[in-house]
Amino acid sequence: MGGVPKGPTVVALGGGHGLSASLAALRLLTTELTAVVTVADDGGSSGRLREDFGVVPPGDLRMALAALCDDTDWGRTWRDVMQHRFHSPAGRSGLDNHAMGNLLIVTLAELLGDIVAGLRWAGALLGARGQVLPMSRVPLMIEGDVLVESSGVHGGPPRRETIRGQAACAVAGRLEEVRLVPADAPACPEALSAIEYADWIVLGPGSWYTSVLPHLTLPETRQALCDTPARRCLTMNLAVDTRETTGMSAADHLRVIQRAAPEFRVDAVIADDSSVGDPGEFEQVAGELGAEVFFGRVRSSGQRSVHDPLRLAGAYHEVFASAGAAGGGR
Amino acid sequence: MGGVPKGPTVVALGGGHGLSASLAALRLLTTELTAVVTVADDGGSSGRLREDFGVVPPGDLRMALAALCDDTDWGRTWRDVMQHRFHSPAGRSGLDNHAMGNLLIVTLAELLGDIVAGLRWAGALLGARGQVLPMSRVPLMIEGDVLVESSGVHGGPPRRETIRGQAACAVAGRLEEVRLVPADAPACPEALSAIEYADWIVLGPGSWYTSVLPHLTLPETRQALCDTPARRCLTMNLAVDTRETTGMSAADHLRVIQRAAPEFRVDAVIADDSSVGDPGEFEQVAGELGAEVFFGRVRSSGQRSVHDPLRLAGAYHEVFASAGAAGGGR
Repeated sequence: MGGVPKGPTVVALGGGHGLSASLAALRLLTTELTAVVTVADDGGSSGRLREDFGVVPPGDLRMALAALCDDTDWGRTWRDVMQHRFHSPAGRSGLDNHAMGNLLIVTLAELLGDIVAGLRWAGALLGARGQVLPMSRVPLMIEGDVLVESSGVHGGPPRRETIRGQAACAVAGRLEEVRLVPADAPACPEALSAIEYADWIVLGPGSWYTSVLPHLTLPETRQALCDTPARRCLTMNLAVDTRETTGMSAADHLRVIQRAAPEFRVDAVIADDSSVGDPGEFEQVAGELGAEVFFGRVRSSGQRSVHDPLRLAGAYHEVFASAGAAGGGR
Repeated sequence: MGGVPKGPTVVALGGGHGLSASLAALRLLTTELTAVVTVADDGGSSGRLREDFGVVPPGDLRMALAALCDDTDWGRTWRDVMQHRFHSPAGRSGLDNHAMGNLLIVTLAELLGDIVAGLRWAGALLGARGQVLPMSRVPLMIEGDVLVESSGVHGGPPRRETIRGQAACAVAGRLEEVRLVPADAPACPEALSAIEYADWIVLGPGSWYTSVLPHLTLPETRQALCDTPARRCLTMNLAVDTRETTGMSAADHLRVIQRAAPEFRVDAVIADDSSVGDPGEFEQVAGELGAEVFFGRVRSSGQRSVHDPLRLAGAYHEVFASAGAAGGGR
């Protein structure tokens, strides 16, 4: 891993497993890497910590750090420590199901008085390549609308129902729209600055409504993403038909972006052939966003819904090189 | 701190704040330092962890590590992280009152499959000077006898009552005897080896019955302490009249050692003039143990019951040098 080139300056935005997959690939291509992470999780260990301590939910930040750990005995050991979850034999401990890294991030943030400083120290412990930033220093809440069938024998038109919280939104059914609460939370200035000075922005993969879209929903981040002279790459999910995107095609995923932020232009879209229903329709909608589509096999052979880091790195490499060939670059 | 000489090979045994005080002084004199720590605590964060996870109580191990941290920004920051305690605003979190370092030690021990390996990694994180070992890999329980006044109007002779657990023993009243459960737990082989190859053994200061005496109670450790060709130094407490040593003089503290392990010989005793009632009596009992007494001012000016690290280091330096002058050394 010592041979990783300096490479382009990349900012990857997202959350959860999707962002981790993106980072695991990007770290093979560049050392100039910033992860900007959604902080709206309210489930599990993160949810309990934000409720009990009023902190930014640390889980997705921890996963991003783990994805960037140095590939040495030291880096891997501390990554495993961060990812460790407590499980007491009798299951009656107040620690049960907490991830060690979540507790470490909360501790560092409290000791140093700032989550960004805390993440810098956690990154130093892991020898992380690049930095991890929260999208906001304020814990955010996601609110989404779902359409539900009317009850009663005779039915009626479906009604719109508002679901509060990321954990609830992720399982509520097909989302029509998501909002952040507070709607005008300040973005993390370090993240805005990283977006401004990047060569490439990478958005996705990840839970489309609850991990990807929030970055185009927070006003300051959305503005920065639209204003940056950086090129923009959208990485599609492998599993398009999830609970929150029931019945949606890959092209529909692009339309969601289009509808949420019509002024947001995209230069490249990475998609696995097998996840795109009608390639023609998909390329057409991508074209409306300004993007060229890079089809390729980025799926892992073993786990069908997981990106293979090397294959995804190959796709990013091709995308980044195409821009250089076109004579671009800032 | 970079200028600390290699110095003599020292093994310091004890637990809690007393051992930390000893280590804070010894680290100024030598880099060849091993702490051997009692693992019988059953109160607070340690008590909950040993009950819920069946682990060796980590609290005293954590304190010893913190006392040995590297005196750099890195070492001090990770020490502060280890010593951090969770306190949620509403006080309703399952994390409340847990020390971060306790959770880290439990995690490392579980991940690496061994508490000694876990402590080595925690020490590496802190850049600790020297190593920290548990007296045993088995969680121990302390059982003590106290004399209690008979109830009833007419009283009667005091009865002997058995108190179980270190936390209960520490506040039960004057202890007559302590035992370990299991009585024949194996000592940590790495600790036995360190004792065998040491130049100096330092026992105390610390809670006499619950932190110091256990090292002379566990059979294998007691044997190693008696057999080692190393010289032995006993460091007396500043506050002699505690709950568990009610009414006892400094000389009585020596008699407790004498009674518990008559074959244990001591070369030097360090005592603050102000803590020793009758110096003549004290020197006489010390002499029966084989020891020369080093009186000196080792008390902190600010906190009366706390050892000053520099003054205590001065006393250890004098003790270690006296042996050299006498032509000793192995």
